[in-house]
Amino acid sequence: EPSLEYELTRRRIHTNIAEIWSYFSSELGKLRKVVGPGNAELEESIQQVLLQGADHKRSLLSDMEQLRRVDGYEAWRQQEANELSDLVQRRLHHLQNPSDCQNARKLVCKLNKGCGYGCQLHHVVYCFIVAYATERTLILKSRGWRYHKGGWEEVFRPVSDSCQDAGTAYAYNWPGKPNTQVLVLPIIDSLMPRPPYLPLAVPEDLAPRLKRLHGDPIVWWVGQFLKYLLRPQPDTRDFLDSGMRKLGWERPIVGVHVRRTDKVGTEAAFHDIDEYMTHVEDYYRTLEINGSSVVRRIFLASDDARVIVEARKKYPQYQIVGDPEVARMAAVSTRYTDTALNGIILDIHLLSMSDYLVCTFSSQVCRVAYEIMQTMYPDAAYRFKSLDDIYYYGGQNPHNRRAVIPHKPRSHEDLQMKVGDLVSVAGNHWDGNSKGKNTRTNQGGLFPSFKVVDKVETAKLPVYAGV
Amino acid sequence: EPSLEYELTRRRIHTNIAEIWSYFSSELGKLRKVVGPGNAELEESIQQVLLQGADHKRSLLSDMEQLRRVDGYEAWRQQEANELSDLVQRRLHHLQNPSDCQNARKLVCKLNKGCGYGCQLHHVVYCFIVAYATERTLILKSRGWRYHKGGWEEVFRPVSDSCQDAGTAYAYNWPGKPNTQVLVLPIIDSLMPRPPYLPLAVPEDLAPRLKRLHGDPIVWWVGQFLKYLLRPQPDTRDFLDSGMRKLGWERPIVGVHVRRTDKVGTEAAFHDIDEYMTHVEDYYRTLEINGSSVVRRIFLASDDARVIVEARKKYPQYQIVGDPEVARMAAVSTRYTDTALNGIILDIHLLSMSDYLVCTFSSQVCRVAYEIMQTMYPDAAYRFKSLDDIYYYGGQNPHNRRAVIPHKPRSHEDLQMKVGDLVSVAGNHWDGNSKGKNTRTNQGGLFPSFKVVDKVETAKLPVYAGV
Ligand SMILES: Nc1nc2c(ncn2[C@@H]2O[C@H](COP(=O)(O)OP(=O)(O)O)[C@@H](O)[C@H]2O)c(=O)[nH]1
Ligand SMILES: Nc1nc2c(ncn2[C@@H]2O[C@H](COP(=O)(O)OP(=O)(O)O)[C@@H](O)[C@H]2O)c(=O)[nH]1
Repeated sequence: EPSLEYELTRRRIHTNIAEIWSYFSSELGKLRKVVGPGNAELEESIQQVLLQGADHKRSLLSDMEQLRRVDGYEAWRQQEANELSDLVQRRLHHLQNPSDCQNARKLVCKLNKGCGYGCQLHHVVYCFIVAYATERTLILKSRGWRYHKGGWEEVFRPVSDSCQDAGTAYAYNWPGKPNTQVLVLPIIDSLMPRPPYLPLAVPEDLAPRLKRLHGDPIVWWVGQFLKYLLRPQPDTRDFLDSGMRKLGWERPIVGVHVRRTDKVGTEAAFHDIDEYMTHVEDYYRTLEINGSSVVRRIFLASDDARVIVEARKKYPQYQIVGDPEVARMAAVSTRYTDTALNGIILDIHLLSMSDYLVCTFSSQVCRVAYEIMQTMYPDAAYRFKSLDDIYYYGGQNPHNRRAVIPHKPRSHEDLQMKVGDLVSVAGNHWDGNSKGKNTRTNQGGLFPSFKVVDKVETAKLPVYAGV
Repeated sequence: EPSLEYELTRRRIHTNIAEIWSYFSSELGKLRKVVGPGNAELEESIQQVLLQGADHKRSLLSDMEQLRRVDGYEAWRQQEANELSDLVQRRLHHLQNPSDCQNARKLVCKLNKGCGYGCQLHHVVYCFIVAYATERTLILKSRGWRYHKGGWEEVFRPVSDSCQDAGTAYAYNWPGKPNTQVLVLPIIDSLMPRPPYLPLAVPEDLAPRLKRLHGDPIVWWVGQFLKYLLRPQPDTRDFLDSGMRKLGWERPIVGVHVRRTDKVGTEAAFHDIDEYMTHVEDYYRTLEINGSSVVRRIFLASDDARVIVEARKKYPQYQIVGDPEVARMAAVSTRYTDTALNGIILDIHLLSMSDYLVCTFSSQVCRVAYEIMQTMYPDAAYRFKSLDDIYYYGGQNPHNRRAVIPHKPRSHEDLQMKVGDLVSVAGNHWDGNSKGKNTRTNQGGLFPSFKVVDKVETAKLPVYAGV
């Protein structure tokens, strides 16, 4: 088996090859803009450097993939991933099926958070994490769900086979007492006090194994709850299978999610389809670096049908799997209907099954797909390109990274870092730099992304001994 | 144990990280020259990018070193290196000590090649390789050696303990017949016909192990002959030990060889001491990337004493180990004396013991040091920076690399490559590009260095069964 150090270093090299390219390509892009107008020859030669540099980066990233495949530890990774997932799924099953339901302690979670499907899934996952941490059986109240009046259980398997009702005991509000039998959880935004095990924390007992196995343990952890929650009812399963068939879904495929309508201009910026496709093309060119040739295929999901029409027109060389009808139903006015629910379930399912995701992580739709994707591979942490945010979980505690290389500010925009400093990161500018705040100095600013490593947060949680 | 594929991929990533940096830094350097004169601000910002890019590269290379240390295969590498070396040394000892010296077949090699010490060592190694390949005991004729009239055996242990004389049989010239008892070998430059086992070939029976263990098997192979040849006589050993002590030689240390006098302008270009020191500094900054601090130390060897004086003046922050007196004696007029011989033996010894070598591979002095260095580590192939040539062996057969990524010419200077093409390489421009000739098309030109991999040449040689 690989050492923790080996896995961390290997993943760090992979990330930093992408970062060094982001840095040089962004700086060369700026130079081209500055000198280009007056000097066509120079502009052309910068363009040449960008083209060749991109190939060089692809070669390196392709070799890093190859390195992982041949380092002798792939079988271990697969087995460890299966074992860890089985362990967590057993624990969840155990938690949700107490031997004495009537007297079991329960946590009531209401599905009626006033937001979209992805946001609601994250709400349920948050409830489930609290349930796991407090060893309370999760009771999901979903009657009158905005996406399906009949409730969750008509779409997905109930969160418990044997204990679906809170019973008649008085339901106390959070935080209650350890022995309160029934506790109702508010949405994460109004949770007070906030327990230490909220994301981005992973359970302390699993942390050593997760740190070694996975590039972003919290995403894996969230993915496990989704794996349990999203077990489809037979009708849903059939619908997903036939949907895939009808669409002609096939691998290799890149999942592209373009969030538009109500999100644009309010919570996220507009991104042209070309911007997504640049990264898709880059992905395929990396696969093709050794001279092979790979069919261009994407699965395209959006809440705006015009995106699919536009993409088909602009990218005839691409096989574009997707259904404009599904996108049309995702418009704000028809979003909360049974048909739209089917659409978003299918879209997220197919996005999560992609080889690679290109999207905006500002959208919970794509983050959910990314989380579910983690259940398909030992480590799919790097199988995405986000055009805006880095991964986050709504309502999360600060996301800290630790400086491993000192940083002297290059300008007044930069923050200063000593080795060991914890920096709370706000985002990655995808140009070699990230933004954050040094928790030691309280100074905010930019710093080169390669100078930090992620700090995996852990929380002491029940260990479900014997499960 | 690591797979062959893993070791090849890991080394390739290491090399190509260095190459991508060479490429970007060279292109950015050109841009700075073009736009700088009119635009100080732009020049400064390009300078900033170069500084940060260099740190980024150092971080990646340092992580690649770390990867090797923690990948779980280091103990195997050490053991495999020891076993392979022991095997070859045993074979050489067996070859050189035939049970019946009188009737043994012999190969006579004369040390009087009209060139310097490094060149002469390479001459003897070449003889020894032919001896190994033909299973002939090497007889080294060194009486009247230009560096030491008393002969080789007064400095180094004789190449045989029991069979040092060719005897009275008639000595035929190359190629002779397999059963010719005594054969005299000309210098490699006039060898006709040329056997297939000359450098860069390594023995077929060892090739699978060498390819896995070592980044440049031929250098390892040559190093093994030097290891056998350069076993010092007690006086030489004492001289080397006391020389080291007197100089205050200590690790970590970078070996710098600056070849001047008769070489400059004839066989090699002049390189300023600053050029060497840039690479030394880069090496130390890579060691220091995580914020540690390492004493700056070099061992400086030259055939021009002024180089040492100049370096001491210009680089006061450096501890410069070296002896101007030794360099003075290396001048052409005094080069072939006993004192000078002591000097060059000590210099090569100390260069070979460095952590890293900065020099011009156009000089056989540095190439010999690099070859011997391979006997100190499982794989020291990457522990050098040459300011001019890539590694070569005087008189070698073509050095082929195989295209693994196709290349479309960017300009008329480029050659075209298909995957699988063999390219005979002439050199690396250390700016991301190499020069060579495509053996399929016979077209010569430039190509990105990252698009090829080395082809290890092999030759069927005696396997010394039972040794
Ligand atoms: N079918 C479908 N619906 C979408 C898509 N994008 C957005 N939607 C709809 O818009 C809602 C967006 O809310 P939410 O899931 O919270 O994600 P966010 O607002 O993008 O962070 C989704 O739940 C869907 O109902 C899409 O690609 N396909
Ligand atoms: N002591 C000493 N002698 C040197 C040095 N560089 C060159 N020489 C002398 O110059 C000779 C150069 O000839 P050779 O070894 O064939 O190497 P090349 O000419 O540099 O390829 C050496 O053998 C030494 O006698 C040096 O750094 N130290």
